[in-house]
Amino acid sequence: MDIVAAVAAERASATELFDKLRHDGLDDPGVTRDPYGAGEQRGHATVTAAAERLGLRIGHDDAANLYMTLPGCDPAAPQVIVGSHLDSVPHGGNFDGAAGVVAGLVAAAALQRAGIRLDRDLTVMGIRAEESIWFQVSYIGSRGALGTLPDGALDVRRIDTGRTLAEHIAECGGNPEALQAGKRHLDPARIAAYLELHIEQAPSLVEAGKPVAICTGIPGNFRYADARIEGSHDHVGLPRRFRRDAAVAGAEFAMAMDRLWEEYDARGIPMACTIGRFHTDPAAHGLTIVPGAFHFSLDVRAYDEAVLAELDQKVDAIIAGIEQRRGVRFHRGPKARAAVGVVDPAIRAELVGGAAALGIPTLDLGSPASHDAAAFAAVGVPMGMIFVRNANGSHNPREAMEIDDFMAGATVLTRYLVDTFAARLG
Amino acid sequence: MDIVAAVAAERASATELFDKLRHDGLDDPGVTRDPYGAGEQRGHATVTAAAERLGLRIGHDDAANLYMTLPGCDPAAPQVIVGSHLDSVPHGGNFDGAAGVVAGLVAAAALQRAGIRLDRDLTVMGIRAEESIWFQVSYIGSRGALGTLPDGALDVRRIDTGRTLAEHIAECGGNPEALQAGKRHLDPARIAAYLELHIEQAPSLVEAGKPVAICTGIPGNFRYADARIEGSHDHVGLPRRFRRDAAVAGAEFAMAMDRLWEEYDARGIPMACTIGRFHTDPAAHGLTIVPGAFHFSLDVRAYDEAVLAELDQKVDAIIAGIEQRRGVRFHRGPKARAAVGVVDPAIRAELVGGAAALGIPTLDLGSPASHDAAAFAAVGVPMGMIFVRNANGSHNPREAMEIDDFMAGATVLTRYLVDTFAARLG
Repeated sequence: MDIVAAVAAERASATELFDKLRHDGLDDPGVTRDPYGAGEQRGHATVTAAAERLGLRIGHDDAANLYMTLPGCDPAAPQVIVGSHLDSVPHGGNFDGAAGVVAGLVAAAALQRAGIRLDRDLTVMGIRAEESIWFQVSYIGSRGALGTLPDGALDVRRIDTGRTLAEHIAECGGNPEALQAGKRHLDPARIAAYLELHIEQAPSLVEAGKPVAICTGIPGNFRYADARIEGSHDHVGLPRRFRRDAAVAGAEFAMAMDRLWEEYDARGIPMACTIGRFHTDPAAHGLTIVPGAFHFSLDVRAYDEAVLAELDQKVDAIIAGIEQRRGVRFHRGPKARAAVGVVDPAIRAELVGGAAALGIPTLDLGSPASHDAAAFAAVGVPMGMIFVRNANGSHNPREAMEIDDFMAGATVLTRYLVDTFAARLG
Repeated sequence: MDIVAAVAAERASATELFDKLRHDGLDDPGVTRDPYGAGEQRGHATVTAAAERLGLRIGHDDAANLYMTLPGCDPAAPQVIVGSHLDSVPHGGNFDGAAGVVAGLVAAAALQRAGIRLDRDLTVMGIRAEESIWFQVSYIGSRGALGTLPDGALDVRRIDTGRTLAEHIAECGGNPEALQAGKRHLDPARIAAYLELHIEQAPSLVEAGKPVAICTGIPGNFRYADARIEGSHDHVGLPRRFRRDAAVAGAEFAMAMDRLWEEYDARGIPMACTIGRFHTDPAAHGLTIVPGAFHFSLDVRAYDEAVLAELDQKVDAIIAGIEQRRGVRFHRGPKARAAVGVVDPAIRAELVGGAAALGIPTLDLGSPASHDAAAFAAVGVPMGMIFVRNANGSHNPREAMEIDDFMAGATVLTRYLVDTFAARLG
């Protein structure tokens, strides 16, 4: 059986596995797979059972990531990893993350079905805790595996449980002490390539009418998860000249960022800015009180380190201007950064060419979102990504990936593995 | 003893009464006299005890307002009322409202001490529930007394207890059924004048270096207590052209209102705009989610009905523009209105002239805030107001009225009563 037919034969298994994952994570509305918690654990159990049915070798690391390995001819050769994360945002969709793990299992099963052996181990990786809404730290699982977790990450607390990342990791069978000591499970020099399939988190593919996109880059970002503005709580009748209104200062900040983005869009420089939390204090605000305190988060992302550095400076200038004009003080709190994730040009060319050969239309697309793949790229692992069309965005229960589009992406992925790593006879 | 000396002799009693009221209402930080609740009840008990010590006649109405009457020569003549409210905002200051009631008691005591009888009854009124943060309805006590409560007011719920105004009124000895039937306790034709002393809720007197201001008018307003914006919750990586960001829409609205105010200020047209609640949904928002829902309140006030109507239209246009540009929907919820409170020109002239004769410097000042006096003006009662200097605004624990300034205001008030209503001999 040829590899394309072998992938197609996995359609029913993939559908069943998605259904089982959805059922495990149901948290009306949508799906919640809380990282290092009950939801993610159920996802790991379900994926592990599927891998065991395929006879893959199961392993874990100190961050409790899941490794499911199809051995290749030469166990000493640098392995190829296909992975994504198994956690979700609260009340998110079923496919964000999980689709990449299911795609890896589809590829492994198709290789077995087609009787094609790779020249090296293929490891499907179920990565922990990618969604930074929970711990406000990005790429926890992948950076834990690579020994690149930032200082202090193990002490941060999950926003809902209030318990530390170290406690959560230990509960799920990991070893936070080893992570603390900087021990790594994956040596970048021993990884030939990292591939990740992910649903698109914007409607660019819907807009373009194509099923699959090949990633041109993953944005780096800088973030303030917990910033606030200090003004003065005052009476509703206070004349404008006396006010130090923290909420209007917040509004001016949001509008300045929105204009900045509009300007970059017009110049054709891709970036994004999101102020996800943006609020007066529910314990103190009211119809007749001028808000003296305001809280916000900020995520600014771009595909070029120089653009990020420029945006960082512009944020400084915007804040300084508002502080001066409105008599308020910004307290930005801790700043997090993630480096731009550079896609390996050879992998990208292979994916684009392979899809064309298969007759699958693709779009070149800068990833709208951050992904674990960026953590691999950051330590020098050649990396590539495939995006699958998805109608209603991500991080919400209305995600809408069609199984046909997923199978198209999985076919491009598997074809790449065969073209690049199939063992040569003789 | 002349009336000025008689007022001055009440300084220690006034200080003691303020201290007792502060002690009754302490709710660190600041003072909470929750309307139709424990805090306001303690305030009423303390003021009633002080009035009983002066031998005033105590009465109540169906809204549980407190009347403390010093009988005049002719009980059939339309009475003069000196009043203000005894409730406060949560964690507010001690003087907002209470100062006007204490001033009425100082005037009554000074008239007794000076042996001056008025030609008509002087009633000091302790008004219920003026602070609209609690029930989101303005002037509850005064409009209850005057039979002008809006339809449905008795069914609104206090934001903290969730219980209806009717239940709260009944608990404090009132009769909500009678209020429901539109029964009024005060006939406007039987009120010669309504006077109210109140702390200034902005620092205009501090800025001007004067102890007392004479009110030129009370602003009317329109309000949305519970408005929201509906957009789309989306992933942080969504490009700008696809977003329907409810929080950025809220920011654009706030900035448009702020620019509108700046423009009216520049044209010398007094108004104020406050967006006291301004927030993403804490249950759904997060660092990596584009906000699909946003909530806000709006209070717009001005001293001229035509200006209010113009602002109302401008709000409509601003909202329509944002909806169109950003693909969001504003749901404004119930709209409340309060009419402009017109100050009686004769009373104002008397107060200004009386203060000048006493050597007390005054400022002409449009009230920054709404007051019960506006409810009296709305039914045709001749009304005047006196503001007392206050350093740190109102509706917060840092209110700072000096007793010297209060006594200056009480002197202007008492002198007015004597000049206008003292019984003529023979």
